[in-house]
Amino acid sequence: MTLQATPLRLATSAPDFEAAFKARLHWAADTDAAIEQRVADILADVQQRGDAAVLEYTRRFDGLEADSLAALALDPAELKAAFDALPDAQRNALEAAARRVRSYHEAQKKASGESWSYRDEDGTLLGQKVTPLDRVGIYVPGGKAAYPSSVLMNAIPAHVAGVGEIVMVVPTPRGEKNPLVLAAAHVAGVTRAFTIGGAQAVAALAYGTATVPAVDKITGPGNAYVAAAKRRVFGTVGIDMIAGPSEILVLADGSTPPDWVAMDLFSQAEHDELAQSILLCPDAAYIDAVQREIDRLLPAMPRREIIAASLNGRGALIHTRDMEEACAISNRIAPEHLEVSSREPQRWEPLLKHAGAIFLGAFTSESLGDYCAGPNHVLPTSGTARFSSPLGVYDFQKRSSLIEVSEAGARALGPIAAELAYGEGLQAHARAAELRLEGRP
Amino acid sequence: MTLQATPLRLATSAPDFEAAFKARLHWAADTDAAIEQRVADILADVQQRGDAAVLEYTRRFDGLEADSLAALALDPAELKAAFDALPDAQRNALEAAARRVRSYHEAQKKASGESWSYRDEDGTLLGQKVTPLDRVGIYVPGGKAAYPSSVLMNAIPAHVAGVGEIVMVVPTPRGEKNPLVLAAAHVAGVTRAFTIGGAQAVAALAYGTATVPAVDKITGPGNAYVAAAKRRVFGTVGIDMIAGPSEILVLADGSTPPDWVAMDLFSQAEHDELAQSILLCPDAAYIDAVQREIDRLLPAMPRREIIAASLNGRGALIHTRDMEEACAISNRIAPEHLEVSSREPQRWEPLLKHAGAIFLGAFTSESLGDYCAGPNHVLPTSGTARFSSPLGVYDFQKRSSLIEVSEAGARALGPIAAELAYGEGLQAHARAAELRLEGRP
Repeated sequence: MTLQATPLRLATSAPDFEAAFKARLHWAADTDAAIEQRVADILADVQQRGDAAVLEYTRRFDGLEADSLAALALDPAELKAAFDALPDAQRNALEAAARRVRSYHEAQKKASGESWSYRDEDGTLLGQKVTPLDRVGIYVPGGKAAYPSSVLMNAIPAHVAGVGEIVMVVPTPRGEKNPLVLAAAHVAGVTRAFTIGGAQAVAALAYGTATVPAVDKITGPGNAYVAAAKRRVFGTVGIDMIAGPSEILVLADGSTPPDWVAMDLFSQAEHDELAQSILLCPDAAYIDAVQREIDRLLPAMPRREIIAASLNGRGALIHTRDMEEACAISNRIAPEHLEVSSREPQRWEPLLKHAGAIFLGAFTSESLGDYCAGPNHVLPTSGTARFSSPLGVYDFQKRSSLIEVSEAGARALGPIAAELAYGEGLQAHARAAELRLEGRP
Repeated sequence: MTLQATPLRLATSAPDFEAAFKARLHWAADTDAAIEQRVADILADVQQRGDAAVLEYTRRFDGLEADSLAALALDPAELKAAFDALPDAQRNALEAAARRVRSYHEAQKKASGESWSYRDEDGTLLGQKVTPLDRVGIYVPGGKAAYPSSVLMNAIPAHVAGVGEIVMVVPTPRGEKNPLVLAAAHVAGVTRAFTIGGAQAVAALAYGTATVPAVDKITGPGNAYVAAAKRRVFGTVGIDMIAGPSEILVLADGSTPPDWVAMDLFSQAEHDELAQSILLCPDAAYIDAVQREIDRLLPAMPRREIIAASLNGRGALIHTRDMEEACAISNRIAPEHLEVSSREPQRWEPLLKHAGAIFLGAFTSESLGDYCAGPNHVLPTSGTARFSSPLGVYDFQKRSSLIEVSEAGARALGPIAAELAYGEGLQAHARAAELRLEGRP
């Protein structure tokens, strides 16, 4: 039987649209009680036994033997050697991508990550001091989903933020190292690396062991064990969002070559069977053309089985009444990746309120953004773009409020604070403000 | 027996300092399995039965009867009436505090919360669009910890961010409303309010019911049930940090009147028995003087029992070798509130890396910041200032990356993206980039 990829065809004008649309969007992160319990046990064990526990789990889960955790450390020279040994084309591409990602995040830091302060009319200073985190951990998955681009996207913002130490962990099942991942770590400014993974690596980073230093925040994707471990150590350390399946939404006015759009839908679908690719378009004939391109292009794709499973199971081609309605539906979805494949992307952009990243115009394929346009490819999934943001320099900084009340300011503010403090029944708060009213004794 | 408040006296030069210091700092948020289970049940019930479940729990836990959830809504007119009925002094203080908090957060938005973009040499546009959340929920505790200042500190940043709808929930046990809380909601720009609380209110905000609209993020403090509920709905909605006990650290050079410092330590200790007040000072005689002021001032404090329990159980007066060492210890603690009670606060400020808010100079009592200096009083506790920030306008905004690749840009970026995508085995990504190389067909 020929492999077919046929995303669900919907039309907003159909009476059953709402129910079918909701059903297709539905995705719930299952929490597996068995995984939760095993992760809790691993965390407790690493917290108690440190290096010995990490070594034991690494042996058991990754089939990797070592006498000590220090033997699983990768020093900067080894990372550099991996970089130097790459073929020229890969080395140059990695460097070019890193340069662009760095330059974008430097602009981001300048636009929104600098300290600020002002003085009010009483000479009181108010502001915020922005400082980098001292030490962060970057989790990099091993095996089939070992993406060097993820190393760049996690480590470079941390490096630009000025983080003192960037510790990477990456599992290497049976000792097999991915040279592109090590090379990316070199380019991105990773300080130290350990070939450990899973919940045991998250535990080592969160609590620290004799060999692995405790970090202040852990970012980076991972499997269900890693996600569960990150959730559990949240509070002891900071974490980034827990990612769901990747998604693309293409908002098309019909002016982009349909094979370009078909390939963009594929490029999301090829990630995994749960990935979601959706097209919104007011032109039914164009949707037909995209489906024809899907049929034509699929057989040549090496990952066609995954693409077909994803498009058949979760994909959708939605015919809308007009572009305005397409924008409104996009806002309901709050997609991770949003392509505005239109001749007039700037016309629609102001209508788009919720999305991880917005790719404007036919030339802006998501894949350019995934690797090298500059912006981060770690983006909020599963509708969380309603309330969260791309990974950025700000995730590796924190803010401290600065207040220096002048003597005149203390006289002006004291009565206000005291009135409110008495109203809340907090008399020491009130008295502390009142003591400053008369100046130094 | 006379009530005594005697914080633990430590000296960094003592051989047992490290152990005693660590023991005093130790605080672990217990997770209570019984609470967890009850909260999970309440969330599931509200998700399924909506209004009816919320009404039932409100009857059971708050002793408040109502025919419908709509009957528990407070309309804007009722909030305004509460404000208008306040005594002049309270109304003026509330307005003055709100004005200053608003003006600080407007400066914050301008400094770090505006959209930005630039074009690179190929004409490719890169940037970030910053937009407000559509709708947020503010949890306000009822009963003894009903603080109108918390309403201001949670709602004003949301209002300044441009959030479309700010929904407040506040439990009113047996129907008893706190007029200052209602008045603060009016001043702060709350859109709608419901007199519900506990896990059931968090569930209503996260999932939505027929009467309570689903929000995108929930902020605000609460008891153990509220905290557990917020943790569980995280992902469906955004949440702020889960707060631990409040803390103050005073870094003193001995130049501030010792009664001012004693009262500042009280003003943290009076919150609750678990609150932590610590003094770091290189001058032993000054520490003695502060202890004498504690003894002298305590009997007159209405909340002296709580203050004594907090200072005896968790307080510390620490003699350091010098101010530099005091700064280093402060960085290890990463306190929520940090007073630099020195003649030279600007000399020490650059050494201070981790703190929620830094109060510079003798006139800057923490209580002025708590109520009306302008900066937010919702701050990271329990050492989480190592990686997190005060509540701010940024918590009510999210960012979308903007990318518009020009035709020339697509030619420059395509080969880089393709090289890396092939390296990762993601051929559709590579093909999507390559299709753009030749321009439109």
